[in-house]
Amino acid sequence: MSGKFITFEGLDGSGKTTVIRNVIKAFEQSPDADRFMYSREPGGNRIAEAIRKIILSEEYAEMDARTEALLFAAARRQHLVENVLPALKDGKIIMSDRFVDSSLVYQGAGREIGMDAVAKINEFATNGLTPDLTLYFEIDPEVGLNRIQNNRQDEVNRLDKDQLDFYRRVHQGYLKLAQDNPQRIKVIDASQSIEKVTDDVLAILKQFLKVKEHE
Amino acid sequence: MSGKFITFEGLDGSGKTTVIRNVIKAFEQSPDADRFMYSREPGGNRIAEAIRKIILSEEYAEMDARTEALLFAAARRQHLVENVLPALKDGKIIMSDRFVDSSLVYQGAGREIGMDAVAKINEFATNGLTPDLTLYFEIDPEVGLNRIQNNRQDEVNRLDKDQLDFYRRVHQGYLKLAQDNPQRIKVIDASQSIEKVTDDVLAILKQFLKVKEHE
Repeated sequence: MSGKFITFEGLDGSGKTTVIRNVIKAFEQSPDADRFMYSREPGGNRIAEAIRKIILSEEYAEMDARTEALLFAAARRQHLVENVLPALKDGKIIMSDRFVDSSLVYQGAGREIGMDAVAKINEFATNGLTPDLTLYFEIDPEVGLNRIQNNRQDEVNRLDKDQLDFYRRVHQGYLKLAQDNPQRIKVIDASQSIEKVTDDVLAILKQFLKVKEHE
Repeated sequence: MSGKFITFEGLDGSGKTTVIRNVIKAFEQSPDADRFMYSREPGGNRIAEAIRKIILSEEYAEMDARTEALLFAAARRQHLVENVLPALKDGKIIMSDRFVDSSLVYQGAGREIGMDAVAKINEFATNGLTPDLTLYFEIDPEVGLNRIQNNRQDEVNRLDKDQLDFYRRVHQGYLKLAQDNPQRIKVIDASQSIEKVTDDVLAILKQFLKVKEHE
């Protein structure tokens, strides 16, 4: 029994974190319940959490975009080694809120370092590990930004302060990734209600996990 | 007037930090005294120092070698952007205790990730900036390790705990770099007394800075 590595991607405000929570709740009833594992980037262990603190600190407005990309890659590496790889070996189905794609689009496209350059440092970090399945939550960048500004006024961090132009570049980055990786990345219409999005995601996951089990 | 970027490299215990101190003292008398600037890696500003704390913490024995290499690259990037590049623009002569070469040999060769792989993430971090001159302090790995174990018992950190095999791989890495970059890297016989090494380094620096000033 080998594990599965499923990642959830999308703009802030796309609802993916809420939907992941719903999905995990739905699978709690399944006979495979103990195989499911949630993970979030950056973080997951004490080294990655220490790096996360530096990345998200409001104090560090002077942080260079490449420094930020390297810190995300460092946290990712440690998370992979300590959490993801052992769990996969153990047959777990990992649902990860963000992974390499987030760095490609946020730092590579959003902060304009270039998606290829950011891909290189992430190849170093992951040693080539790619998700088995990625669910990309597609929304209009303006909708995402509005949702964030309305919902999260008391938990705004440095990343959330970026403006619409940045969001539009990130969005373009995601569309390019989805186009270039049609086998791996499934596009979810995240403009729908959370209930409908949850249903769509559950349908894809059930199909994917069933299909894979019958291979 | 453009600046110069001079790096000092070598095994721990090679005496380079003491010699840099001597060199800076010697140049304090020169008319160019205010052009000289000392820097140390990792560190140099608050973000890089925060990263340094994670790298050097004794608590984090579980740190993966690639995580460590990415953290060094992140601290280096921030140091470059905030300290090195503005100083070079300002015409300073920067003397840096370690730079990219240290990552290539310590993480690449010492921890066996591969020098080429580590070079890639550092190209991302430096955007291709290479030192104008590198002084490599050559000593026998056993001599270096003995010096550390005798002199620094009360300030041992995680990196210093590594053993002789590790030191030998690092040493081989330095020899390869010196051989591949004869123009940039000058080899100093650091088995001599600190006074003699200081004199050798001063002679090379005076020659280098004079030559460059007359171009």
